[in-house]
Amino acid sequence: MNQTFIHPQALCESQAIGDGTRVWAFAHVLPGARIGRDCNICDGVFVENDVVLGNRVTVKCGVQIWNGITVEDDVFIGPNATFTNDPMPRSKAYPKAVTRTLIRSGASIGANSTILPGVEIGTGAMVGAGAVVTRSVPPNAIVIGNPARINGYVADTEDPSIPLRVADTRAPGRTGLGVGAAGLHELRIAKDLRGELSVGEFERELPFTPVRYFLVFNVPSQEVRGEHAHRLCEQFLICVRGSCRVLLDDGRNRREVILDRPSRGVHMPAMIWGTQYRYSPDAVLLVFASHYYDPQDYIRSYDEFQQLVSREPVRA
Amino acid sequence: MNQTFIHPQALCESQAIGDGTRVWAFAHVLPGARIGRDCNICDGVFVENDVVLGNRVTVKCGVQIWNGITVEDDVFIGPNATFTNDPMPRSKAYPKAVTRTLIRSGASIGANSTILPGVEIGTGAMVGAGAVVTRSVPPNAIVIGNPARINGYVADTEDPSIPLRVADTRAPGRTGLGVGAAGLHELRIAKDLRGELSVGEFERELPFTPVRYFLVFNVPSQEVRGEHAHRLCEQFLICVRGSCRVLLDDGRNRREVILDRPSRGVHMPAMIWGTQYRYSPDAVLLVFASHYYDPQDYIRSYDEFQQLVSREPVRA
Amino acid sequence: MNQTFIHPQALCESQAIGDGTRVWAFAHVLPGARIGRDCNICDGVFVENDVVLGNRVTVKCGVQIWNGITVEDDVFIGPNATFTNDPMPRSKAYPKAVTRTLIRSGASIGANSTILPGVEIGTGAMVGAGAVVTRSVPPNAIVIGNPARINGYVADTEDPSIPLRVADTRAPGRTGLGVGAAGLHELRIAKDLRGELSVGEFERELPFTPVRYFLVFNVPSQEVRGEHAHRLCEQFLICVRGSCRVLLDDGRNRREVILDRPSRGVHMPAMIWGTQYRYSPDAVLLVFASHYYDPQDYIRSYDEFQQLVSREPVRA
Amino acid sequence: MNQTFIHPQALCESQAIGDGTRVWAFAHVLPGARIGRDCNICDGVFVENDVVLGNRVTVKCGVQIWNGITVEDDVFIGPNATFTNDPMPRSKAYPKAVTRTLIRSGASIGANSTILPGVEIGTGAMVGAGAVVTRSVPPNAIVIGNPARINGYVADTEDPSIPLRVADTRAPGRTGLGVGAAGLHELRIAKDLRGELSVGEFERELPFTPVRYFLVFNVPSQEVRGEHAHRLCEQFLICVRGSCRVLLDDGRNRREVILDRPSRGVHMPAMIWGTQYRYSPDAVLLVFASHYYDPQDYIRSYDEFQQLVSREPVRA
Amino acid sequence: MNQTFIHPQALCESQAIGDGTRVWAFAHVLPGARIGRDCNICDGVFVENDVVLGNRVTVKCGVQIWNGITVEDDVFIGPNATFTNDPMPRSKAYPKAVTRTLIRSGASIGANSTILPGVEIGTGAMVGAGAVVTRSVPPNAIVIGNPARINGYVADTEDPSIPLRVADTRAPGRTGLGVGAAGLHELRIAKDLRGELSVGEFERELPFTPVRYFLVFNVPSQEVRGEHAHRLCEQFLICVRGSCRVLLDDGRNRREVILDRPSRGVHMPAMIWGTQYRYSPDAVLLVFASHYYDPQDYIRSYDEFQQLVSREPVRA
Amino acid sequence: MNQTFIHPQALCESQAIGDGTRVWAFAHVLPGARIGRDCNICDGVFVENDVVLGNRVTVKCGVQIWNGITVEDDVFIGPNATFTNDPMPRSKAYPKAVTRTLIRSGASIGANSTILPGVEIGTGAMVGAGAVVTRSVPPNAIVIGNPARINGYVADTEDPSIPLRVADTRAPGRTGLGVGAAGLHELRIAKDLRGELSVGEFERELPFTPVRYFLVFNVPSQEVRGEHAHRLCEQFLICVRGSCRVLLDDGRNRREVILDRPSRGVHMPAMIWGTQYRYSPDAVLLVFASHYYDPQDYIRSYDEFQQLVSREPVRA
Repeated sequence: MNQTFIHPQALCESQAIGDGTRVWAFAHVLPGARIGRDCNICDGVFVENDVVLGNRVTVKCGVQIWNGITVEDDVFIGPNATFTNDPMPRSKAYPKAVTRTLIRSGASIGANSTILPGVEIGTGAMVGAGAVVTRSVPPNAIVIGNPARINGYVADTEDPSIPLRVADTRAPGRTGLGVGAAGLHELRIAKDLRGELSVGEFERELPFTPVRYFLVFNVPSQEVRGEHAHRLCEQFLICVRGSCRVLLDDGRNRREVILDRPSRGVHMPAMIWGTQYRYSPDAVLLVFASHYYDPQDYIRSYDEFQQLVSREPVRA
Repeated sequence: MNQTFIHPQALCESQAIGDGTRVWAFAHVLPGARIGRDCNICDGVFVENDVVLGNRVTVKCGVQIWNGITVEDDVFIGPNATFTNDPMPRSKAYPKAVTRTLIRSGASIGANSTILPGVEIGTGAMVGAGAVVTRSVPPNAIVIGNPARINGYVADTEDPSIPLRVADTRAPGRTGLGVGAAGLHELRIAKDLRGELSVGEFERELPFTPVRYFLVFNVPSQEVRGEHAHRLCEQFLICVRGSCRVLLDDGRNRREVILDRPSRGVHMPAMIWGTQYRYSPDAVLLVFASHYYDPQDYIRSYDEFQQLVSREPVRA
Repeated sequence: MNQTFIHPQALCESQAIGDGTRVWAFAHVLPGARIGRDCNICDGVFVENDVVLGNRVTVKCGVQIWNGITVEDDVFIGPNATFTNDPMPRSKAYPKAVTRTLIRSGASIGANSTILPGVEIGTGAMVGAGAVVTRSVPPNAIVIGNPARINGYVADTEDPSIPLRVADTRAPGRTGLGVGAAGLHELRIAKDLRGELSVGEFERELPFTPVRYFLVFNVPSQEVRGEHAHRLCEQFLICVRGSCRVLLDDGRNRREVILDRPSRGVHMPAMIWGTQYRYSPDAVLLVFASHYYDPQDYIRSYDEFQQLVSREPVRA
Repeated sequence: MNQTFIHPQALCESQAIGDGTRVWAFAHVLPGARIGRDCNICDGVFVENDVVLGNRVTVKCGVQIWNGITVEDDVFIGPNATFTNDPMPRSKAYPKAVTRTLIRSGASIGANSTILPGVEIGTGAMVGAGAVVTRSVPPNAIVIGNPARINGYVADTEDPSIPLRVADTRAPGRTGLGVGAAGLHELRIAKDLRGELSVGEFERELPFTPVRYFLVFNVPSQEVRGEHAHRLCEQFLICVRGSCRVLLDDGRNRREVILDRPSRGVHMPAMIWGTQYRYSPDAVLLVFASHYYDPQDYIRSYDEFQQLVSREPVRA
Repeated sequence: MNQTFIHPQALCESQAIGDGTRVWAFAHVLPGARIGRDCNICDGVFVENDVVLGNRVTVKCGVQIWNGITVEDDVFIGPNATFTNDPMPRSKAYPKAVTRTLIRSGASIGANSTILPGVEIGTGAMVGAGAVVTRSVPPNAIVIGNPARINGYVADTEDPSIPLRVADTRAPGRTGLGVGAAGLHELRIAKDLRGELSVGEFERELPFTPVRYFLVFNVPSQEVRGEHAHRLCEQFLICVRGSCRVLLDDGRNRREVILDRPSRGVHMPAMIWGTQYRYSPDAVLLVFASHYYDPQDYIRSYDEFQQLVSREPVRA
Repeated sequence: MNQTFIHPQALCESQAIGDGTRVWAFAHVLPGARIGRDCNICDGVFVENDVVLGNRVTVKCGVQIWNGITVEDDVFIGPNATFTNDPMPRSKAYPKAVTRTLIRSGASIGANSTILPGVEIGTGAMVGAGAVVTRSVPPNAIVIGNPARINGYVADTEDPSIPLRVADTRAPGRTGLGVGAAGLHELRIAKDLRGELSVGEFERELPFTPVRYFLVFNVPSQEVRGEHAHRLCEQFLICVRGSCRVLLDDGRNRREVILDRPSRGVHMPAMIWGTQYRYSPDAVLLVFASHYYDPQDYIRSYDEFQQLVSREPVRA
């Protein structure tokens, strides 16, 4: 099974084909293409020259991989998924350079989806069947529709086919989330005829003493904010109006929380990759932070984040 | 014409190919596939092993029929239509069993549409070009868009290419609909300064004496209700707020009615297959019924309904 | 105390003053006025000629009772309450006849309110302080604001100062209302992903077999409908969209019901005085009736209704 | 001028009339009434027994002061203004005790307004002409309409006829308000395609270090919150969604601020009487506080507040 | 009847009382007041010094006419109507000058209404009972409510008690309005799938050839526009979105038109006093004019307009 | 390069292949197809018999060109783009004639898009990747989505990849647009408390004297209106409510204008191709025209328009 297999009806003009890779009937691989180990290149697939495919990549029937497209390890590309490399194509009018597209490791590209040029599909992301992807997709995000919007995030790595559980307890007090030391806090609330009042005391009830607050608002509903981790800074998030979703990820486990009332906060300790999305039009997110703003404290690359947490012992 | 034809450039590894079926250039049929009579398998089509195609099936170019997909007689599959059999695909992560898909007889799958795994496309249904089908499609429904929604129903069987006429008379009194004994009733209405008043007297003006009423409301606009026939029970439907569409089908003819005012009712006799859809967000449907609720009175399978009416003499 | 008292500073030119009535300083009663027993005519009140006041009437300071105003027994008229008798007054342009106003027995007219000409303030009604009354006020109604709108109804006669309890049970089945044989019915309701469904069977679940239905809709929110009783006809009311209030009165007790969901009905037997008000803008009221329309069946005068029920034994 | 004057056509049966007070024609004062110095009781006014009027009170024509009404010093009562002392009046049905009404010093009651029983009109408040007052009026508030709602607050005591200036600068940084040490803060704000972000650092940018926050929301628009001062606690208020008005009062000066954006905060030091009103339906008010909650720290009586600040030196 | 009458219980300290005027019991007229001929000053009225009343004025009970109030001929003042002359009254704080109020000839002031200081009530206007008038009232307008808004206009002078007929024909072509040469035009309209289209050809279908157009929009619903006449300029008005009312007045007759569709225009010839009011929030009024803008062409005083038309022969 | 190239693995059964055209592996061209010069027919493309392709056409992998499809010069067809020729396909039910589709010269068809039968894709138009085209596309339009809607227009021919600049000046007076003699007019506007007023005088301020106006309204937002030129008639367009976009094209240059206020007009001289689209739901477009309606004055074919303007000298 570790032997490279080229179907007799295939046209494989490249020599750079890894061990265990199979190329099936009517597929056509141009000479410059490089394909890794244990890949599966199905019937009728077309691979141009300026293309690199990683190891264990599956490319189903009816797919073309054009110049400028890079596919990392363990990517699945569904049947008839369509790539592009020219944003405003005209016949015989060639752009000086193709617009490059990057499919990160572990991502899946749904059947008959369309990937516009220049995007990056993040690690572990899932592009829904029939989706038309016009912007980059964050790590682990699930996108669907035309144009594609984030619909959720895939569950943690132990069992990738199970959708993320959304935490939704209303019990007062703190509930652990199973993601590092993160917790969901239900705060005190008082109602009377004149309105409602929600209270939190910094050193008594909140998990740290903030030195700073900020407010996030007027976020277009399709936008994602956050998408970074902090080395030292802790945060406490409350959606004081409207609602949003917060995805917490410690590099091993992921958990999603809906913030939709002023009496609910989520504590995001340091070294948690945080993502906020599905803001309602009226959402106002209040965030308390344990440290002053320091750009050195931000980890903005999910790759770097994963490398850092893989060196650390598990915390819970 | 009754002779099986395999194009010299085709790869047909199966022996179970019916008489009169043609397989064209660059098509690839795996050994386990079974294909019926008088089918047309166009250029570049790919058919896996665990596949059954009925008789008189057309599969246009650029289509792959994967393991787990069953296609009944007289189905049309347009060019580049794309099937799937894994809801959360990952490269090299194979599900224990593929998710099966069933295309019922007489259905048509539009060009470049996407069919998600696990759905059933009903008898005679029409999937629009470019649609992304995420849920099962009822018999004779026309679905379009991403995700696909029901846009209408195909006309009766004598002339399937003509869209359904929608009845819309405003004349007072009863108008026959050409579907069994069904009728459209315009009721009396009175307006004064304090509001409007619509009146119907059961024994004098309605076509039967009801023993029961029910109200249908809060139906999401994309939903379909009804989709069954009664053996004995007659119904009289009024949309007292908002609007909806009612499809009446006696097994031979179909007719659609828009209910959008408190003074309009539709009489649905027994042995009429009824479907309600395109509810406005505020729709409230009032239904009078001639019999008490009896689960034995329901026919919930369109196949069974068609068998029953085919045995009966035509009523009108 | 049974002696008539005229303050020395008063100008009382009428002889028709009942026993026990007191007329205070600066009050001026013209010769034609007739005033009953045990009235209290406070400082500065002015009473014209074509005026009749019943027994036990209180008229506080700053009030003028003009020609054409009739006040029945036990009426309270608050300070500076202002009456009128010409809808389009012009100086020196006298209407051929004054527009008459009638204050029924037991009504109270709030301080500084304004009563436009031609209205009737019903028995036991309460006009709020500062209200501007532009239309007749039903028996026992409480009206406030400018222009005055019905805000509620006063409780039954045993204890007039307690506001009416509003029935609001959600328990399934029938709940008696303490008003004749009237009952509140919570009907069966079924919800599933496709919407909600509410059911009632006529002979099994409803308290009578209807022969007729009607729908009331597009009622401006400030309007009142109903305000009559039936001799024989029973009704069953469901507000299938929006909400309204129904006041039931058997001549001895009154009770109010909020209809605000399709699964709640109120049974109004014969000989119940019914009033519907506070319609939401989108309200659609469905009414089942036990008899065909018969104008002879209506009792439209509350006085007549009270006379009829006072002859009957109490039913419950 | 210091001599009491009783018009010959007046009926003054009380002996407790202060020096310099004048009682004009057709006025009637009952024996138990007590009236202070330098009052002016105009033509036709009626004063019952259980009444106390302070010094320098003006009562214009057509007014009656009933049992249970107390009027402090320097109050103006416009012509035909109407008081009440029975919430549900019925003729000859006397309540066990009248419902008392209190008009605090310096208040003005507009012409032809109506005051319902049981309310307190606060110090310096202004009731608009024709208003119908159904609830108590805070100190210095201006109320208008039927029913009366707060429309604003009267300016500080140096010049009561000038309406309050509303602070509305958009310059970044802190702006003094002329009310103790209170200040308006315009905070940093950053906008990008993903939304907006407003930031404040506790020890660096805010005027104190908070130990606590609370959120006020779902306040009905007609409600007033706040209306107290703190002995020690400082507050910093931001309306993070919608808008509200904040009235600051140091006992000498008053100033009003509109909070209507997440980047604007108002600093309310200790010993400032604060009132929040005109909440928009969607308003969410975020408050940082310098001390933990302590009921002893609240001053809830404006009288007490004024006594305390009158002992202190002016701070600014 | 031409003899002045002073009731023995009245206090009339003025000598300037016209022939035929009557002053009734408990009324009090101060020495400086001047009252015209044939007036009726009812019980308990109070008239201060700086007051002029014209001829044939009626003042009902409970009214005070304060310093600064001028009342022209033929005015009716209803019972308990209340005037004011100080916008921010405080006890013992007297304004340097009272704020003056003017009631123009023929106006009527409704019972228990409140007139704030500084307004002018126009000729023939009608203030509804209980209204609180906070702004000046145009000639012939009917105002009601708190605060008072224009509800309509009184009918032409031949029969002032009949409300104005509102023209509402939908017949195509031109309909005369009975006001000079003014006419209502129903224009052609065409609808197709792409929308609707309304057409008018200037020289063929409109009553004059315009040289100018203007658009009126964003008019708050309570506002009035127009209120002037043109000497030469003709206008053609179409409300192309929303609706408004147009009052046309030739000095002899008045007529009101509702403009509420793009296919309806009203032709307003020269020498017609025009008023537009009750704009819907979205109203856009398109006006064609026969002359260029010329400020000399405007007649902005209704008094001047009436003098001009009274000299002209009747046109129709 | 001018030599025709047929890949050895291709099946090219047609003789009508132009010079310089290349046909690649697994492509299949049926005998009746005619293909022009310098075309590029990529791997796996299928071309039926009743097909004509112009010169310099690019057809990427995975595309089928069915009977009835005509492709003019310089067209780009992206990978997996899918055509159709039967609106209601059923297996083995062949329409009498295929529904024809026309792709005009210079158009580009995006990757994986779907083109329904019977449409015409206009000259220079751009169909977005993944779009589902259900209606004809105007010249130079950019369409995206499912179903496809116009998102804009491509810039003029000198530089097709630059998006159209949208004119948006607010300076008063006239601004040339660089498209023939067309101009954008900012008109005078006057605001006061009663609303706003916009004025234009025909002979003084507008660029021509209109003889006609029309109003366009109730246009569904996805609709396009206009799309023609006039030989003689000039137009002046004002969007008096809501907004729309107007594209002006003199055959050499294109420019787009947003009309979104009553004070902005655009002058469209004769011989300008005009298109209006992106109507807001409430848009009302007022158009003045210099000539009476004359069907002979319309040029409805963009081809004819381009021929006519190419004969004329450049005007500006």
